[in-house]
Amino acid sequence: MSDKPLGIGMIGLGTVGRGVAALLRDEAGLYTQRCGRALELRRVVVRDAAKAAAAGVVKPSLVTTDITDLLNDDAIDVVVEVAGGLDPVGGYVEQALRAGKHVVTANKTLLAERGPELFALARANGVAIAFEASCGGGIPCVTALTQGLMANRIDGLYGILNGTCNYILTEMTRGGKSYTDALAEAQSAGFAETDPAADVSGADAAQKLAVLASLAFGVRITGGQVPTRGIDGLSLSDIELAGELGYDIKLLATAERWPGQDWVNTEVQPCFVRKDELLAQVHGPYNALSVHGHAVGHVLLFGQGAGQLPTASAVVADILGIANGSAPAAFSRMRITPDLAEPAPLVDPADTESAFYLRMQTVDQPGVMAQVTRLLGDRGISLAAVLQHESRAGEVVSLVITTHLARRGDVQDAAAEIAALDAIHGEPVVIRIVDLPA
Amino acid sequence: MSDKPLGIGMIGLGTVGRGVAALLRDEAGLYTQRCGRALELRRVVVRDAAKAAAAGVVKPSLVTTDITDLLNDDAIDVVVEVAGGLDPVGGYVEQALRAGKHVVTANKTLLAERGPELFALARANGVAIAFEASCGGGIPCVTALTQGLMANRIDGLYGILNGTCNYILTEMTRGGKSYTDALAEAQSAGFAETDPAADVSGADAAQKLAVLASLAFGVRITGGQVPTRGIDGLSLSDIELAGELGYDIKLLATAERWPGQDWVNTEVQPCFVRKDELLAQVHGPYNALSVHGHAVGHVLLFGQGAGQLPTASAVVADILGIANGSAPAAFSRMRITPDLAEPAPLVDPADTESAFYLRMQTVDQPGVMAQVTRLLGDRGISLAAVLQHESRAGEVVSLVITTHLARRGDVQDAAAEIAALDAIHGEPVVIRIVDLPA
Repeated sequence: MSDKPLGIGMIGLGTVGRGVAALLRDEAGLYTQRCGRALELRRVVVRDAAKAAAAGVVKPSLVTTDITDLLNDDAIDVVVEVAGGLDPVGGYVEQALRAGKHVVTANKTLLAERGPELFALARANGVAIAFEASCGGGIPCVTALTQGLMANRIDGLYGILNGTCNYILTEMTRGGKSYTDALAEAQSAGFAETDPAADVSGADAAQKLAVLASLAFGVRITGGQVPTRGIDGLSLSDIELAGELGYDIKLLATAERWPGQDWVNTEVQPCFVRKDELLAQVHGPYNALSVHGHAVGHVLLFGQGAGQLPTASAVVADILGIANGSAPAAFSRMRITPDLAEPAPLVDPADTESAFYLRMQTVDQPGVMAQVTRLLGDRGISLAAVLQHESRAGEVVSLVITTHLARRGDVQDAAAEIAALDAIHGEPVVIRIVDLPA
Repeated sequence: MSDKPLGIGMIGLGTVGRGVAALLRDEAGLYTQRCGRALELRRVVVRDAAKAAAAGVVKPSLVTTDITDLLNDDAIDVVVEVAGGLDPVGGYVEQALRAGKHVVTANKTLLAERGPELFALARANGVAIAFEASCGGGIPCVTALTQGLMANRIDGLYGILNGTCNYILTEMTRGGKSYTDALAEAQSAGFAETDPAADVSGADAAQKLAVLASLAFGVRITGGQVPTRGIDGLSLSDIELAGELGYDIKLLATAERWPGQDWVNTEVQPCFVRKDELLAQVHGPYNALSVHGHAVGHVLLFGQGAGQLPTASAVVADILGIANGSAPAAFSRMRITPDLAEPAPLVDPADTESAFYLRMQTVDQPGVMAQVTRLLGDRGISLAAVLQHESRAGEVVSLVITTHLARRGDVQDAAAEIAALDAIHGEPVVIRIVDLPA
């Protein structure tokens, strides 16, 4: 391990890239002191050099639009990829690895879709990929899963992995706002993009979950394999009814493997979480990840899952890990990345068990409750609670039922049958009630 | 880095040691797969070989009462010290380091008192000390501070670092129990020792704080340098009054450096924590550490701070870090351990500012409130809230005052003057109200 400066080439100078550049500039002395060698930003590849110059955070002489300026610089030891997306960035990362450069990336999409092949390429070239910033922003959740909790067989991950969704849900829950109003507020507060689709659809959380679950369970899984439901269809009524029942609704990214089972179930969906759970106390744009390990029990990590400096904090931590040699050592020795893993033995979510919340819109007429509960009972689904507010005759009201543990497929089938009843308007809303392990 | 098995010698086969041995035995295949080499427990040093044999978790042939059996075994690469205490264990660790063996330790006392000299000895012998299990049990807080959050200047640590105290406080808060009853219950539930002094006095938390603060701030500090007040003098009345004011009382280990200041303030004491803070949601024997970094903002880590398998989880994670070479690389390169640091520039707590809670016992007579508030006002201490329940004439009642930010020394001086008032019975209770950074 050398004492010479660690040469850094960066791809991208957007929000996160400017944060990384600012930390490397402002804390240069601290980092040199901490890791015993200087961290030297030698090159920044951007699409628009004028815009990069205007940002003012890096010397104009370092900026280029030509990736080969970076790839051909032998003094660049590590490529920091903070541009995002699959193309052209995936190709750049590939070239960097082939050129024998370590890669630090914040790109969950790239890892969720092409992780195994890139990890294998890094391995073949004797370099490492570090990716703390790809999941959970500044929260050291990748470090926890790949190091601190490595002695555990992981039974479950339960994550709030998208700050935009959590901000919107918090506004709906605490502020009584509609989804539309809460989204607009998130946009004006800078917590949601103009096109919020990737966030509110759950796709962003699914990609992060794929990365984390692959590490936790030692399997190969892509973001696209995660059954995903976002918050965009969520009604304020369900949040209010959840509250009455003692729950908050959170967009949870879950990855579970029951002890003794050889399958893994991954999902992203709005879930009921008991108000007294720590995950229910995660408000606004914050993220959190609950990890349940067979030895350690429940560990929760909380922090800012996005944002310039929190994400840059994770990127620079990875750079320091490359600089001190620990990240390459762990990457080359630990056989925990998905290039070395088998495809995840994914279960059909219909075959998993959970408690559920069902809300039906009904004209309160004699016999409706009997019909509904009979359809549930026929499938062996037992009721935990029933909630129906007082109504006037003929008025459409919400009939709410929570179930004990039931097979999801059975609940969905029963819901379809319930939807066909004359007295039921529209489709029943079905939401998972998560019973977090102790 | 070798593919041959990592030879392990263990000192101690108590609760944690048996947990480590059980994990190494039961998960041998998993660990070998994960780190590419076998973890081989070759020797266990105990005081009582018969007792060790009776535990049944290691082969009797591995057990010895002679430390030289371990030190002289060249196939032992790493010594796992889970015996605790300073003597004779400190000497054993010293000998192991001199013999060129890495050390994994769960011993907060040893690190809090002799850390700098042992870290220096490790460095001189080209080996590493790993100590995740010494603070926060299974919570990967050392990993977070030394790796995941390493890009940050840390402004504050706020920790619930003693599960016994938190269990007792939870029982007092939620169960309305007296300290004595809650302690008895903690003892019968196995969460408190027969002699609970080290826990309830705050000394255990102070040692852990010394270890964590030395890493976070890059300073040298011993457990004995941390001003410490335990929960043993805490009255149920103060917990109930805290609740009325919107707070819970937690035993907090705090280490703070205000931006721009060059001093560090470390303390362990019962504190008021707003009920809506995550730290107030940490119940029972659980621990948590809030870290506030200049880039990452607020990160919280939560989990079991003690117990056989949670602690063993951290020990084995450290062993895996030694096995894959990342821990030695980081230890030798990163200049963050206290052997390389200057003594902490500790401030006199009297010179720090905080909000405070004061409770006085008074016979409610005309003029008392005026006298008390004048004494506070004379020292520039401004009032945030006043609480006094209705009482009958001549009855002794609690007069509660909370302050805005005030110098602690001024509050203590005012409290002493208040104690001297005729209408005040006994000494005022003074408790810090922690305003956690956003």
